[in-house]
Amino acid sequence: MVCVMAGPKTPFKTWMPQAIEQARAAEARGEVPVGAVIVSPQGEIISRAGNETRERHDPSAHAEILAIRRACRAVGSQRLTGHSLWVTLEPCPMCAAGIAMARIEAVHYGASDPKSGGIESGPRLYDHPNLHHHPKIYSGIAQEECAAMLQDFFQLRRE
Amino acid sequence: MVCVMAGPKTPFKTWMPQAIEQARAAEARGEVPVGAVIVSPQGEIISRAGNETRERHDPSAHAEILAIRRACRAVGSQRLTGHSLWVTLEPCPMCAAGIAMARIEAVHYGASDPKSGGIESGPRLYDHPNLHHHPKIYSGIAQEECAAMLQDFFQLRRE
Repeated sequence: MVCVMAGPKTPFKTWMPQAIEQARAAEARGEVPVGAVIVSPQGEIISRAGNETRERHDPSAHAEILAIRRACRAVGSQRLTGHSLWVTLEPCPMCAAGIAMARIEAVHYGASDPKSGGIESGPRLYDHPNLHHHPKIYSGIAQEECAAMLQDFFQLRRE
Repeated sequence: MVCVMAGPKTPFKTWMPQAIEQARAAEARGEVPVGAVIVSPQGEIISRAGNETRERHDPSAHAEILAIRRACRAVGSQRLTGHSLWVTLEPCPMCAAGIAMARIEAVHYGASDPKSGGIESGPRLYDHPNLHHHPKIYSGIAQEECAAMLQDFFQLRRE
Protein backbone atom coordinates (compact mmCIF):
# COMPACT_ATOMS: atom_id res chain seq x y z
CA MET A 1 0.00 0.00 0.00
CA VAL A 2 1.26 3.44 -0.87
CA CYS A 3 -0.62 6.16 0.94
CA VAL A 4 -0.60 9.59 -0.62
CA MET A 5 -1.86 12.53 1.39
CA ALA A 6 -1.74 15.30 -1.15
CA GLY A 7 -2.24 18.90 -0.13
CA PRO A 8 -2.19 21.79 -2.57
CA LYS A 9 1.47 22.60 -1.94
CA THR A 10 3.07 19.84 0.07
CA PRO A 11 2.13 16.40 -1.16
CA PHE A 12 3.22 13.79 1.36
CA LYS A 13 3.93 10.30 0.16
CA THR A 14 4.88 7.46 2.46
CA TRP A 15 7.74 5.15 1.56
CA MET A 16 7.22 2.99 4.63
CA PRO A 17 5.76 0.09 2.60
CA GLN A 18 9.06 -0.14 0.72
CA ALA A 19 11.00 -0.10 4.00
CA ILE A 20 8.71 -2.85 5.36
CA GLU A 21 9.42 -4.88 2.23
CA GLN A 22 13.14 -4.66 3.07
CA ALA A 23 12.43 -5.70 6.67
CA ARG A 24 10.50 -8.77 5.50
CA ALA A 25 13.30 -9.70 3.12
CA ALA A 26 15.78 -9.41 6.01
CA GLU A 27 13.60 -11.69 8.12
CA ALA A 28 13.53 -14.26 5.34
CA ARG A 29 17.34 -14.29 5.48
CA GLY A 30 17.30 -14.92 9.25
CA GLU A 31 18.04 -11.31 10.17
CA VAL A 32 16.21 -9.07 12.63
CA PRO A 33 13.38 -7.58 10.52
CA VAL A 34 14.35 -3.96 10.12
CA GLY A 35 14.34 -2.29 6.71
CA ALA A 36 15.15 1.12 5.29
CA VAL A 37 15.02 3.11 2.08
CA ILE A 38 16.52 6.48 1.17
CA VAL A 39 14.59 8.82 -1.09
CA SER A 40 16.18 11.58 -3.17
CA PRO A 41 14.91 15.18 -3.25
CA GLN A 42 13.38 14.23 -6.62
CA GLY A 43 11.27 11.56 -4.93
CA GLU A 44 13.10 8.46 -6.15
CA ILE A 45 14.33 5.60 -3.98
CA ILE A 46 18.11 5.56 -4.37
CA SER A 47 18.94 2.81 -1.88
CA ARG A 48 17.26 -0.02 -0.03
CA ALA A 49 18.58 -2.23 2.75
CA GLY A 50 17.58 -4.63 5.46
CA ASN A 51 19.68 -5.70 8.41
CA GLU A 52 22.67 -7.84 7.40
CA THR A 53 24.54 -8.08 10.70
CA ARG A 54 24.43 -11.87 10.87
CA GLU A 55 25.27 -12.78 7.33
CA ARG A 56 28.10 -10.24 7.17
CA HIS A 57 29.38 -10.80 10.72
CA ASP A 58 29.23 -7.02 11.00
CA PRO A 59 27.61 -5.25 13.98
CA SER A 60 27.53 -2.03 11.94
CA ALA A 61 25.44 -3.60 9.16
CA HIS A 62 22.14 -2.15 10.36
CA ALA A 63 19.63 -1.33 7.62
CA GLU A 64 20.17 2.44 8.04
CA ILE A 65 23.97 2.31 7.77
CA LEU A 66 23.82 0.02 4.73
CA ALA A 67 21.21 2.27 3.09
CA ILE A 68 23.39 5.33 3.76
CA ARG A 69 26.50 3.62 2.37
CA ARG A 70 24.64 2.56 -0.77
CA ALA A 71 23.02 5.97 -1.24
CA CYS A 72 26.35 7.79 -0.81
CA ARG A 73 27.94 5.49 -3.34
CA ALA A 74 25.06 6.19 -5.74
CA VAL A 75 25.38 9.97 -5.46
CA GLY A 76 29.20 9.99 -5.13
CA SER A 77 29.18 12.05 -1.96
CA GLN A 78 29.40 11.62 1.81
CA ARG A 79 26.44 13.97 2.15
CA LEU A 80 22.82 13.22 1.43
CA THR A 81 21.50 16.77 1.77
CA GLY A 82 17.80 16.95 0.93
CA HIS A 83 17.37 13.18 1.11
CA SER A 84 15.00 11.40 3.43
CA LEU A 85 15.29 8.09 5.24
CA TRP A 86 12.40 5.74 5.91
CA VAL A 87 13.07 2.99 8.42
CA THR A 88 10.78 0.54 10.19
CA LEU A 89 12.36 0.97 13.67
CA GLU A 90 13.64 3.95 15.67
CA PRO A 91 17.37 4.18 14.83
CA CYS A 92 19.89 3.15 17.49
CA PRO A 93 22.56 5.64 18.62
CA MET A 94 25.07 4.36 16.03
CA CYS A 95 22.60 4.88 13.19
CA ALA A 96 21.23 8.16 14.58
CA ALA A 97 24.77 9.60 14.61
CA GLY A 98 25.49 8.21 11.13
CA ILE A 99 22.29 9.78 9.80
CA ALA A 100 23.40 13.16 11.18
CA MET A 101 26.87 12.83 9.64
CA ALA A 102 25.26 12.02 6.28
CA ARG A 103 23.22 15.25 6.62
CA ILE A 104 19.97 13.44 5.89
CA GLU A 105 17.14 15.96 5.96
CA ALA A 106 14.31 13.90 7.41
CA VAL A 107 13.96 10.59 9.23
CA HIS A 108 10.63 8.77 9.15
CA TYR A 109 10.38 5.75 11.36
CA GLY A 110 7.79 3.18 12.34
CA ALA A 111 8.09 1.49 15.72
CA SER A 112 9.70 3.16 18.72
CA ASP A 113 12.54 1.30 20.45
CA PRO A 114 12.59 2.20 24.15
CA LYS A 115 15.29 -0.42 24.82
CA SER A 116 17.85 0.39 22.14
CA GLY A 117 16.68 3.51 20.29
CA GLY A 118 18.71 6.70 20.20
CA ILE A 119 16.31 9.42 19.05
CA GLU A 120 13.29 9.57 21.38
CA SER A 121 14.79 6.90 23.65
CA GLY A 122 18.01 6.48 25.64
CA PRO A 123 20.64 9.11 24.84
CA ARG A 124 18.21 11.07 22.59
CA LEU A 125 21.10 12.08 20.39
CA TYR A 126 19.43 14.88 18.46
CA ASP A 127 18.84 16.77 21.69
CA HIS A 128 22.62 17.26 21.97
CA PRO A 129 24.15 20.38 20.45
CA ASN A 130 27.30 18.34 19.68
CA LEU A 131 25.54 16.67 16.80
CA HIS A 132 26.08 19.32 14.17
CA HIS A 133 23.05 18.37 12.11
CA HIS A 134 19.58 17.61 13.43
CA PRO A 135 17.27 15.97 10.90
CA LYS A 136 13.52 16.44 11.04
CA ILE A 137 11.89 13.47 12.75
CA TYR A 138 8.55 11.85 11.89
CA SER A 139 7.74 8.83 14.04
CA GLY A 140 4.95 6.31 14.44
CA ILE A 141 4.43 5.69 10.71
CA ALA A 142 2.82 2.25 10.21
CA GLN A 143 4.09 1.55 13.69
CA GLU A 144 1.76 -1.37 14.40
CA GLU A 145 2.90 -3.35 11.40
CA CYS A 146 6.57 -2.46 12.01
CA ALA A 147 6.41 -3.43 15.68
CA ALA A 148 4.44 -6.64 15.01
CA MET A 149 7.15 -7.91 12.64
CA LEU A 150 9.75 -7.55 15.40
CA GLN A 151 7.51 -9.03 18.12
CA ASP A 152 6.71 -12.06 15.95
CA PHE A 153 10.39 -12.53 15.10
CA PHE A 154 11.56 -12.52 18.72
CA GLN A 155 8.57 -14.61 19.86
CA LEU A 156 9.46 -17.30 17.32
CA ARG A 157 13.10 -17.28 18.43
CA ARG A 158 12.11 -17.73 22.06
CA GLU A 159 9.90 -20.74 21.26
CA MET B 1 58.06 3.29 19.76
CA VAL B 2 56.35 0.55 21.73
CA CYS B 3 56.21 1.23 25.43
CA VAL B 4 55.93 -1.79 27.70
CA MET B 5 55.09 -1.25 31.34
CA ALA B 6 55.41 -4.76 32.70
CA GLY B 7 54.20 -5.60 36.18
CA PRO B 8 54.47 -9.05 37.67
CA LYS B 9 50.92 -10.03 36.75
CA THR B 10 49.50 -7.45 34.39
CA PRO B 11 51.91 -6.43 31.66
CA PHE B 12 50.58 -3.39 29.82
CA LYS B 13 51.63 -2.82 26.27
CA THR B 14 50.58 0.18 24.24
CA TRP B 15 49.42 -0.27 20.67
CA MET B 16 48.98 3.47 20.14
CA PRO B 17 52.06 3.72 17.88
CA GLN B 18 50.37 1.31 15.46
CA ALA B 19 47.16 3.35 15.57
CA ILE B 20 49.18 6.53 14.91
CA GLU B 21 50.77 4.81 11.92
CA GLN B 22 47.27 4.24 10.51
CA ALA B 23 46.37 7.88 11.15
CA ARG B 24 49.45 9.07 9.28
CA ALA B 25 48.66 6.74 6.38
CA ALA B 26 45.11 8.18 6.30
CA GLU B 27 46.53 11.71 6.20
CA ALA B 28 48.77 10.75 3.27
CA ARG B 29 45.60 9.72 1.39
CA GLY B 30 43.96 13.11 2.09
CA GLU B 31 41.79 11.82 4.93
CA VAL B 32 41.36 13.23 8.43
CA PRO B 33 44.27 11.66 10.37
CA VAL B 34 42.56 9.20 12.69
CA GLY B 35 43.76 5.62 12.98
CA ALA B 36 42.78 2.50 14.90
CA VAL B 37 43.87 -1.06 15.55
CA ILE B 38 42.08 -3.94 17.25
CA VAL B 39 44.07 -6.35 19.40
CA SER B 40 42.95 -9.90 20.20
CA PRO B 41 42.91 -11.39 23.71
CA GLN B 42 46.13 -13.17 22.65
CA GLY B 43 47.81 -9.80 22.06
CA GLU B 44 47.89 -9.81 18.27
CA ILE B 45 46.69 -6.98 16.01
CA ILE B 46 43.82 -8.45 13.99
CA SER B 47 42.74 -5.33 12.14
CA ARG B 48 44.05 -1.88 11.26
CA ALA B 49 42.28 1.08 9.67
CA GLY B 50 42.47 4.79 9.08
CA ASN B 51 39.61 7.07 8.10
CA GLU B 52 38.35 6.40 4.57
CA THR B 53 35.27 8.63 4.48
CA ARG B 54 36.43 10.70 1.52
CA GLU B 55 37.80 8.01 -0.73
CA ARG B 56 34.80 5.75 -0.13
CA HIS B 57 32.16 8.53 -0.11
CA ASP B 58 30.99 6.90 3.11
CA PRO B 59 30.29 8.93 6.27
CA SER B 60 30.37 5.69 8.28
CA ALA B 61 33.93 4.85 7.18
CA HIS B 62 35.56 6.10 10.37
CA ALA B 63 38.72 4.25 11.42
CA GLU B 64 36.93 2.53 14.32
CA ILE B 65 34.00 1.21 12.25
CA LEU B 66 36.35 -0.05 9.53
CA ALA B 67 38.59 -1.70 12.12
CA ILE B 68 35.56 -3.38 13.73
CA ARG B 69 34.24 -4.60 10.37
CA ARG B 70 37.64 -6.04 9.45
CA ALA B 71 38.15 -7.63 12.86
CA CYS B 72 34.68 -9.22 12.83
CA ARG B 73 35.35 -10.60 9.36
CA ALA B 74 38.68 -12.00 10.62
CA VAL B 75 37.12 -13.78 13.60
CA GLY B 76 33.85 -14.70 11.83
CA SER B 77 31.65 -13.15 14.49
CA GLN B 78 29.73 -9.95 15.22
CA ARG B 79 31.22 -9.94 18.70
CA LEU B 80 34.77 -9.06 19.68
CA THR B 81 34.58 -10.15 23.30
CA GLY B 82 37.94 -9.78 25.02
CA HIS B 83 39.37 -7.62 22.24
CA SER B 84 40.68 -4.11 22.71
CA LEU B 85 40.55 -1.08 20.45
CA TRP B 86 43.28 1.53 20.20
CA VAL B 87 42.33 4.73 18.41
CA THR B 88 44.03 8.10 18.13
CA LEU B 89 40.90 10.22 18.79
CA GLU B 90 37.96 9.93 21.17
CA PRO B 91 35.28 8.01 19.25
CA CYS B 92 32.22 9.91 18.00
CA PRO B 93 28.74 8.74 19.06
CA MET B 94 28.38 6.53 15.97
CA CYS B 95 31.63 4.72 16.72
CA ALA B 96 31.06 4.61 20.48
CA ALA B 97 27.74 2.84 19.89
CA GLY B 98 29.30 0.50 17.32
CA ILE B 99 32.07 -0.38 19.78
CA ALA B 100 29.46 -1.30 22.38
CA MET B 101 27.51 -3.44 19.91
CA ALA B 102 30.72 -5.27 19.00
CA ARG B 103 31.22 -6.00 22.73
CA ILE B 104 34.78 -4.67 22.66
CA GLU B 105 36.27 -5.02 26.14
CA ALA B 106 38.49 -1.95 26.33
CA VAL B 107 38.87 1.29 24.38
CA HIS B 108 42.18 3.16 24.54
CA TYR B 109 42.20 6.55 22.91
CA GLY B 110 44.60 9.41 22.43
CA ALA B 111 43.20 12.92 21.98
CA SER B 112 39.89 14.00 23.46
CA ASP B 113 37.29 15.46 21.10
CA PRO B 114 35.13 17.99 22.96
CA LYS B 115 33.40 19.02 19.71
CA SER B 116 32.41 15.66 18.25
CA GLY B 117 33.33 12.96 20.77
CA GLY B 118 30.75 10.68 22.32
CA ILE B 119 32.44 9.11 25.36
CA GLU B 120 33.68 11.83 27.70
CA SER B 121 32.15 14.55 25.51
CA GLY B 122 28.68 15.40 24.21
CA PRO B 123 26.14 12.63 24.78
CA ARG B 124 28.63 10.54 26.87
CA LEU B 125 27.07 7.39 25.54
CA TYR B 126 28.53 4.93 28.02
CA ASP B 127 26.84 6.76 30.87
CA HIS B 128 23.49 5.59 29.48
CA PRO B 129 22.04 2.32 30.77
CA ASN B 130 20.48 1.76 27.32
CA LEU B 131 23.85 0.80 25.94
CA HIS B 132 23.92 -2.82 26.99
CA HIS B 133 27.70 -3.08 27.07
CA HIS B 134 30.09 -0.57 28.59
CA PRO B 135 33.74 -1.06 27.62
CA LYS B 136 36.55 -0.03 29.91
CA ILE B 137 37.94 3.33 28.86
CA TYR B 138 41.58 4.47 28.92
CA SER B 139 42.09 7.97 27.56
CA GLY B 140 44.92 10.42 27.03
CA ILE B 141 47.38 7.87 25.60
CA ALA B 142 49.98 9.69 23.47
CA GLN B 143 47.44 12.48 23.37
CA GLU B 144 49.86 15.24 22.39
CA GLU B 145 51.02 13.45 19.27
CA CYS B 146 47.47 12.36 18.37
CA ALA B 147 46.09 15.87 18.82
CA ALA B 148 48.99 17.55 16.99
CA MET B 149 48.36 15.44 13.88
CA LEU B 150 44.78 16.70 13.74
CA GLN B 151 45.68 20.32 14.52
CA ASP B 152 48.33 20.33 11.78
CA PHE B 153 45.92 18.77 9.31
CA PHE B 154 43.16 21.32 9.86
CA GLN B 155 45.67 24.20 10.03
CA LEU B 156 47.02 23.23 6.61
CA ARG B 157 43.52 22.99 5.17
CA ARG B 158 42.65 26.46 6.43
CA GLU B 159 45.73 27.98 4.83
